Amino acid sequence: MSIADPADIIELTELAQQLRVDAVRAADAAGSGHPTSSMSAADLAAVLLSRHLHYDFEHPAHPGNDHFVLSKGHASPLLYAMYRAAGAVDDEELLTFRRKGSRLEGHPTPRIPWVDVATGSLGQGLPVGVGMALSGKRLDRVPFRVWVLCGDSEMAEGSVWEAAEHAAYEHLDNLTLIVDVNRLGQRGPTRHQHDLEAYGRRLRAFGWHTVEIDGHDIEAIDAACAEARSTTRQPTAIIARTLKGRGVAAVEDREGMHGKPLPDAAAAIEELGGLRFVRVDVAKPAAAPVRPPGPAGQLVLPRYELGDEIATRDAFGQALAALGDVDGGVVALDGEVGDSTRLEYFAKEYPERYVECYIAEQQLIAAAVGMQVLGHTPFACTFAAFLTRAHDFVRMAAISGADLNVVGSHAGVAIGQDGPSQMGLEDLAMFRSVHGSTVLHPCDAPQTARLVAEMAGAQGIRYLRTNRGETPVIYGPDEEFRIGGSKVLRSGNDDALTLIGAGHTVHTCLHAAELLAAEGIAVRVIDLYSVKPVDAVALWRAAEETGALVTVEDHHPEGGLGDAVAEAFGDGRPSPRLMRMAVTNMPGSAAPDEQFAAAGIDAESVAAVAREMCG
Amino acid sequence: MSIADPADIIELTELAQQLRVDAVRAADAAGSGHPTSSMSAADLAAVLLSRHLHYDFEHPAHPGNDHFVLSKGHASPLLYAMYRAAGAVDDEELLTFRRKGSRLEGHPTPRIPWVDVATGSLGQGLPVGVGMALSGKRLDRVPFRVWVLCGDSEMAEGSVWEAAEHAAYEHLDNLTLIVDVNRLGQRGPTRHQHDLEAYGRRLRAFGWHTVEIDGHDIEAIDAACAEARSTTRQPTAIIARTLKGRGVAAVEDREGMHGKPLPDAAAAIEELGGLRFVRVDVAKPAAAPVRPPGPAGQLVLPRYELGDEIATRDAFGQALAALGDVDGGVVALDGEVGDSTRLEYFAKEYPERYVECYIAEQQLIAAAVGMQVLGHTPFACTFAAFLTRAHDFVRMAAISGADLNVVGSHAGVAIGQDGPSQMGLEDLAMFRSVHGSTVLHPCDAPQTARLVAEMAGAQGIRYLRTNRGETPVIYGPDEEFRIGGSKVLRSGNDDALTLIGAGHTVHTCLHAAELLAAEGIAVRVIDLYSVKPVDAVALWRAAEETGALVTVEDHHPEGGLGDAVAEAFGDGRPSPRLMRMAVTNMPGSAAPDEQFAAAGIDAESVAAVAREMCG
Repeated sequence: MSIADPADIIELTELAQQLRVDAVRAADAAGSGHPTSSMSAADLAAVLLSRHLHYDFEHPAHPGNDHFVLSKGHASPLLYAMYRAAGAVDDEELLTFRRKGSRLEGHPTPRIPWVDVATGSLGQGLPVGVGMALSGKRLDRVPFRVWVLCGDSEMAEGSVWEAAEHAAYEHLDNLTLIVDVNRLGQRGPTRHQHDLEAYGRRLRAFGWHTVEIDGHDIEAIDAACAEARSTTRQPTAIIARTLKGRGVAAVEDREGMHGKPLPDAAAAIEELGGLRFVRVDVAKPAAAPVRPPGPAGQLVLPRYELGDEIATRDAFGQALAALGDVDGGVVALDGEVGDSTRLEYFAKEYPERYVECYIAEQQLIAAAVGMQVLGHTPFACTFAAFLTRAHDFVRMAAISGADLNVVGSHAGVAIGQDGPSQMGLEDLAMFRSVHGSTVLHPCDAPQTARLVAEMAGAQGIRYLRTNRGETPVIYGPDEEFRIGGSKVLRSGNDDALTLIGAGHTVHTCLHAAELLAAEGIAVRVIDLYSVKPVDAVALWRAAEETGALVTVEDHHPEGGLGDAVAEAFGDGRPSPRLMRMAVTNMPGSAAPDEQFAAAGIDAESVAAVAREMCG
Repeated sequence: MSIADPADIIELTELAQQLRVDAVRAADAAGSGHPTSSMSAADLAAVLLSRHLHYDFEHPAHPGNDHFVLSKGHASPLLYAMYRAAGAVDDEELLTFRRKGSRLEGHPTPRIPWVDVATGSLGQGLPVGVGMALSGKRLDRVPFRVWVLCGDSEMAEGSVWEAAEHAAYEHLDNLTLIVDVNRLGQRGPTRHQHDLEAYGRRLRAFGWHTVEIDGHDIEAIDAACAEARSTTRQPTAIIARTLKGRGVAAVEDREGMHGKPLPDAAAAIEELGGLRFVRVDVAKPAAAPVRPPGPAGQLVLPRYELGDEIATRDAFGQALAALGDVDGGVVALDGEVGDSTRLEYFAKEYPERYVECYIAEQQLIAAAVGMQVLGHTPFACTFAAFLTRAHDFVRMAAISGADLNVVGSHAGVAIGQDGPSQMGLEDLAMFRSVHGSTVLHPCDAPQTARLVAEMAGAQGIRYLRTNRGETPVIYGPDEEFRIGGSKVLRSGNDDALTLIGAGHTVHTCLHAAELLAAEGIAVRVIDLYSVKPVDAVALWRAAEETGALVTVEDHHPEGGLGDAVAEAFGDGRPSPRLMRMAVTNMPGSAAPDEQFAAAGIDAESVAAVAREMCG
């Protein structure tokens, strides 16, 4: 495996210099960007691209392709220089870097066909790479490799250590982390500067094989990559000592040179030996089987009897197991609470497609993002409250254009005695604010089951919010529910207003409507299970026909159901009177019914508000 | 230091059994809770309380008090049993556990005077403890100790490793982590089960001193605590092998016994030796100086000239430095981007009160939470986008009732070429949804400076959103701004509608108003710098006088300015026509002006919408 021919070393050195020159040129053309962060890793990238990566640029979806994740996404000029060297982009396109309309953005996104996931929020490359490596090793058994290039600064992110733990635990020997230890972060020196052993010691303690090298020594890099490829039962980290801005004296290893073009690009290019046209023939991957996409066979969802009392979390678990039966691409990821989220229904049926991520919510979402790159349909599940832990990963997943199912259980004060730390009261706000997301909050078992099937076939980030406690079945087994829909559960010609709920507050609204009906006040009730996209037409009609809308939600008043309803009237049209009922108190421990009363989202409170609005 | 008298060991053993009995009793009375997780750590708690903790229960604000953080907050019955043993709560109160109105909640919160921070979202105790230990060691130089008791499951959280890194780097020898390695998580065995060395190896690699012990051996626990207290220059981790449910054969070390009362409490209490009344005289702390609270002297904010072009991030940094001048309690915490957020202005003036947390946003917020426990006024700052990384810590900080300033820079598409990964487009939604939060988004330098002073004196979670690019100074140096206020920048008797902006979109609205004025269309312009609480009165007046409101925000349409304005009409009152303009596209790289145009939040787009609404 070692480089036998000295001419190869010369050519690789030339390639590395070309990558540096191109990074300098791209940033200079753009007037911004991170050339010095690119230059430190140029030798690493040159050797990887020429001698170890297996990738078919003409077929980015080739199932045997290796996956290269540039976790230090700000070093995008290096990535784009690699693409030029591989013949995938031409020189003209390289110089469109960071311009409007160019796919060569400041930080890489999957607008480029060879980029799997967006990077630029540090510490995400390795966690996502773990998901890809799990797909290859455990789910699909395809011998591709995952190569993650990260910076030294981002080793401070906890998410890196969640991923390090997960990778070693799963013996991901198809995963290699290359740490570009260039000593300098954005603001100044990193904690460990050039102490490679500080990183090595930590990673070995977490179960990794490590190799510490001079990251500008072509032969050493090559040997380290070979060692990574031949290491079994352990992931390998190549910890490389490099110099930021390597090759240009004016910036090399100097502070204050982060994230800006070189002061004199022309001189720098000359110092680096000038423009080059080295072309790399990147090795093609071996043939690999293509997994058939989507469901095969007829989905048979669980059926429930009207009036049965079943928690939506149970219906979720049962529906997911049913979905797993017809779709081999469905994978369930757990945050060590599968007995609570009811992921255990799936885990028992399909242990080989159940991945325990333990209590590491960033890794939970990241692994799912990595798996959807390989065409799987992941469901990542934990308590709604704890999904806030992974907000940045969900945000970046949206930028990655990821198709991802996320399920949050134990929503709202409805959980009762466990208290506020366990209550999802911000989750609707969080998932609504994600670009292109779908947010669903079912109120009974058949609706939950149907929406699980619907979300699996949808695009983007799909969020399902479930409740801990039992709710009565109010829909028949063949009722259809669509993303963007709603159900009018109660209506008449003389409705004085409309009550709108989702999840268990649908039942609250129905109960309130009965209380009001007993007093001769007729109200409409809408089950707004699709919180995003929202069924604007149904809301417009309710506004027109009943004049006023009251939203009732087990969530903070900001960003949830009330805001979703208001948004339907945010296009300048006349707006009805809107009244929001939500959780404004700080809950303590109490029984669910006591919680509802304390928060003012029980049927009596809703009826009282409705009465006042009609009065 | 060792336990000389065998009678002491007997008494400590009795105390530990009492803690177990009381945990069983509390959960049994409540009908829920986590007795088995309490029982594993009872010996650890008994020795700590009796022989190592220095705490004055009558004076929880005593500056010399040690701090005990129960990171595994679900083991709250153990904590409450400790309080009973210390004479702080009586037996009657112990049995109110988890009942409505009881301060003994399912997971501890600062409703109890001896609880510094809410726990229950795992992996937060150590990060917050680091902030407390930093306060003692580096800021106030008071020799209290911080003791964090955590579970083994939560060692999978990346936040624990961010904290481990931070603690060792700062040589926090006043911090001790006790890991209750009881082998069983909620769902089943943990990754490392009883492999103490797995934790020891990792923590030592991160720079910690470690002691591995049998967590049911009273003498070994005592010796380990003594070793922790005498270790210098390093934090110490006591890694204790324990059995979940220790002492009751029906549940001891058995799966499926998490988070529920014991099946037969009476038998269990008998097996544990019955009810006891051991009382512990907890050692009092040494006297310690009280730091004077709040500002001393006259705050002199930076002054700016009308028409100057200055970024709000610069004004923030300059104002914070001015605030630091008169208030020694102000501390600045950085996520290794202080040159971008402009925290560097403060860092240069007050290096001793500047804490670099490196790229670890969870630790950034957690350290700030820990510092405010000790009465400091922390400002935690990074890019708005990366604050999503710490969402769960912000959420828990609100439950802790923490007084905390958070500043997010580089808001919106306005940053330009760096692309979506660096753009804060969800931050307003995130911070609005936090209980009791304040959300501010200034548009010019004087307003920013004044709001920095205002937020420092406010309560709860205060968020300031700043922009990267320069904006013109439009306010005079003596203009006052209050939390919950707004400014009408343009108005007349025949305003056809009202344009509402915040941050740089205020200038967009002013520009659009000029374009419209040139066509003879008069519009009102409101600077809604206080996004939460929102100035409802000003919005009601604008609605009444102009009939229609148009919000313009550099944020996703969900959860931000548009929702805040709609919320002002969410109490059932008649609503005006509302029109929202926000970022609905997925931005790429482009210059700021190109970004505004692409997102449709430039002056021309605003004018076009206003024209249509008036037409």
